[in-house]
Amino acid sequence: MAEPKFRIHIDFAFSNAAKELLRSEAAGHELIFATGVAASVLAAPKLHPEILTADVAVGQPMPAEIAQASRLRWVQVTSAGITRYDTAEFRALAAAKDLQVSNCSQVYAQPCAEHVFSFMLAQSRRLPEILGQRISNAAPEWWAARSRMTSLQNQSVLIVGYGAIARKLVEFLAPFQARIAAYRRSPRGDEGVPVVTASELPAALGAADHVVNILPASAETERFFNADRFRAMKAGAVFSNIGRGTTVDQDALLEALRTGHLGAVWLDVTEPEPLPDDHPLWQEANCFITPHVAGGQRNEEEAVARHFLNNLRRFEKGEPLVDRVM
Amino acid sequence: MAEPKFRIHIDFAFSNAAKELLRSEAAGHELIFATGVAASVLAAPKLHPEILTADVAVGQPMPAEIAQASRLRWVQVTSAGITRYDTAEFRALAAAKDLQVSNCSQVYAQPCAEHVFSFMLAQSRRLPEILGQRISNAAPEWWAARSRMTSLQNQSVLIVGYGAIARKLVEFLAPFQARIAAYRRSPRGDEGVPVVTASELPAALGAADHVVNILPASAETERFFNADRFRAMKAGAVFSNIGRGTTVDQDALLEALRTGHLGAVWLDVTEPEPLPDDHPLWQEANCFITPHVAGGQRNEEEAVARHFLNNLRRFEKGEPLVDRVM
Repeated sequence: MAEPKFRIHIDFAFSNAAKELLRSEAAGHELIFATGVAASVLAAPKLHPEILTADVAVGQPMPAEIAQASRLRWVQVTSAGITRYDTAEFRALAAAKDLQVSNCSQVYAQPCAEHVFSFMLAQSRRLPEILGQRISNAAPEWWAARSRMTSLQNQSVLIVGYGAIARKLVEFLAPFQARIAAYRRSPRGDEGVPVVTASELPAALGAADHVVNILPASAETERFFNADRFRAMKAGAVFSNIGRGTTVDQDALLEALRTGHLGAVWLDVTEPEPLPDDHPLWQEANCFITPHVAGGQRNEEEAVARHFLNNLRRFEKGEPLVDRVM
Repeated sequence: MAEPKFRIHIDFAFSNAAKELLRSEAAGHELIFATGVAASVLAAPKLHPEILTADVAVGQPMPAEIAQASRLRWVQVTSAGITRYDTAEFRALAAAKDLQVSNCSQVYAQPCAEHVFSFMLAQSRRLPEILGQRISNAAPEWWAARSRMTSLQNQSVLIVGYGAIARKLVEFLAPFQARIAAYRRSPRGDEGVPVVTASELPAALGAADHVVNILPASAETERFFNADRFRAMKAGAVFSNIGRGTTVDQDALLEALRTGHLGAVWLDVTEPEPLPDDHPLWQEANCFITPHVAGGQRNEEEAVARHFLNNLRRFEKGEPLVDRVM
């Protein structure tokens, strides 16, 4: 049987190295690199007429484009987040068109989990406070600084949003004998850690030393972390967010910091990104913000390209796609 | 058999809570809290005449005191480091007096390993560089920042000085599938990771992405990390030190940073501590220093007291001491 030849539309800003990899490894197919693509998957994309005749779309195509693309059988989303597609309307469209959708969870799980784990350890060891401090051994402030150092050992960790990133984080925490619980929109029974229900969530928030937010953006998760949920947290708890900024009520978060209720807050995502220069969260001594880089990694575009090529080989053979989400 | 009653001399600045714990749990013994003790185990201690009649000494007694203390059977050192006792002369003295010496490795292994692990992860995720950066998604500098992010996954880690801290670090690195090698003064065959010999050390230094120095201070380890050994390291390697400052030739370290040969340096220990304000290491953008707090933990003195009390129960029964070093 001859290898099928697909028209593959690509609206992701792959690096030149990644483009070469794609051209070489998908040589049997027609690759259409869209011009004028957004430099970030987080930005609003342009409409691309060439997608209307494509069999496969790679990148972040707009649902309106996908709806009109009559030959389209598979969309490889080039991020872990699928905000744009995570709606009842789009799910119905994909089902009606017999369209497969896969994301890049496997590409981003490791760096995202390492990023939030670095937050947790940096907070435990008080790195932002202690780096560069010139304290003499034996000085009272030396003992005071030492006594503020903490450990992840035996800590209680609540993970909200339980997918590939969370599973990695659970692996990282295993040597620390952390007590882990998870909250998940649709528990599947394969989590490997105790899963709390919505009614158990306030108690779980109250028991956690670290609350890790990995929620995606959706209508359902908007301002999930609101004033009530911050109040439910244990005094001194550490809140980290590598999900999406929209899942947090930032006024409520600010209040929880200002009152000293939360011990520290580490954010890789905010709403908007970056926060404006005059945003009060910048002024909070216990609020630490990185600019949406949790998924960052060396040769990121090549990793995305390899993930797509791996799936392309599966798609050619009719095998299940890795990270299929629809 | 009646419980033996020991005269226990204590020259460590225990907190009041730890003193209460000791008085309550070692009630059958005579506790002598020395006055005018140094506030840090790293400072030079005073001489304490009461030790001369003690059966047990807790703290950092001077070898000269110990030599004269005719009844002394056991010294519980209140640190993990045993610099003051780690000499051929003292070992001979301990053997001649039938004196047991134990340290606090178990108290400090976890926090020290977490501290250096936080260094490695913070460097991997470029936290000092990226925290507080206000970069727009899609900006070229955003992609550049993301591409500088790295992972501990599959990294090569060389641990120099292989004791309780190293063993914990090896546990922490397990989920990252790190390739670990160790250099140890006296290999025992129970390391659980490949141990390199002195002749293999240059190649091991050249292969490591992360070199972790946990060497104690001794005549043998003085300036162990010299210009030759820094030159042997891989370009871009990350060097961390939670051992002792004396084990590093700081001029050679500075040179390795200035030439850009080392990617980053993370130090919890220096010589002296703290470095003087005009020390050039403070000026190096890729040099990150914490003030000898790797062992810091909540209720540190109580943890030391509990460790001693646990050993005291063993000593009473003639059982092997935990963390016995002589």
